[in-house]
Amino acid sequence: MVNQREIFLRQAIDLAVDNVRRGLGGPFGALVVKGGEVIATGTNQVTGSNDPTAHAEVVAIRAACQKIGLFQLDGCEIYTSCEPCPMCLGAIYWARVKAFYFAANKDDAARGQFDDSFIYSELNKAIEGRTIPGYRLLAEEGFRPFDEWLKSQSKVPY
Amino acid sequence: MVNQREIFLRQAIDLAVDNVRRGLGGPFGALVVKGGEVIATGTNQVTGSNDPTAHAEVVAIRAACQKIGLFQLDGCEIYTSCEPCPMCLGAIYWARVKAFYFAANKDDAARGQFDDSFIYSELNKAIEGRTIPGYRLLAEEGFRPFDEWLKSQSKVPY
Repeated sequence: MVNQREIFLRQAIDLAVDNVRRGLGGPFGALVVKGGEVIATGTNQVTGSNDPTAHAEVVAIRAACQKIGLFQLDGCEIYTSCEPCPMCLGAIYWARVKAFYFAANKDDAARGQFDDSFIYSELNKAIEGRTIPGYRLLAEEGFRPFDEWLKSQSKVPY
Repeated sequence: MVNQREIFLRQAIDLAVDNVRRGLGGPFGALVVKGGEVIATGTNQVTGSNDPTAHAEVVAIRAACQKIGLFQLDGCEIYTSCEPCPMCLGAIYWARVKAFYFAANKDDAARGQFDDSFIYSELNKAIEGRTIPGYRLLAEEGFRPFDEWLKSQSKVPY
């Protein structure tokens, strides 16, 4: 029996392999699917486009949103050759897709010389004690933008 | 005594307030600083540009990389009006900046009606049991792109 999900996921894997062969970026590919149809694809373009955020999932989400003219992807699924890193997982939440499917996991990514697993482990440390530390300043003033937001009559929530 | 870090961070907060007043997007602003100079700024453009990944930090990182023509921001610092969400924190790691500074935290963001804290809490759940679940398929085939990557002679690692 044909498994449509495996067919989509294999397509994402093929995009990833092809991206390496063509020297365009890292070994990652992704699709956005809605109602059984591929509405956008993405491949890793970090080195090719000088954009550290151009991971396959981010590229595919951005392309899908441009295509449908919306800032969310309600009802869509994502198929990605590798388990999303924290950045891409965050993007998946903000895009509000329904679910995602992946083949390789973050341990495979580590064997492939990528930092996904390392970044996940950093999230469990105190923010000031991480390899890239974060420091909080001006805590009081920091709420000013939210005050402005909460009182805005013309805001578009997301 | 003038605290240069507070001056940069206040500039990020001002960008965030201005972004709401001008109706361009959410209440977030960020700067990329290198050697004491602002090399790029970013504001939230999610709703204005139909791009759920266009958070202030991501926009600033992309702009800084385009400006310097590199896919990493070694030696740079990020100043952001609010603690980075998991997507932006991931972007910060991939950009390999030195450190970041923030004013509001994820609890403030929750009071401002944003999901940052919720997404962080999702990361602690099993991947299949999250609000947006992830499912692994084709685990064996999933390593094909990394095989291709590891044997590639022309790859640009990042």
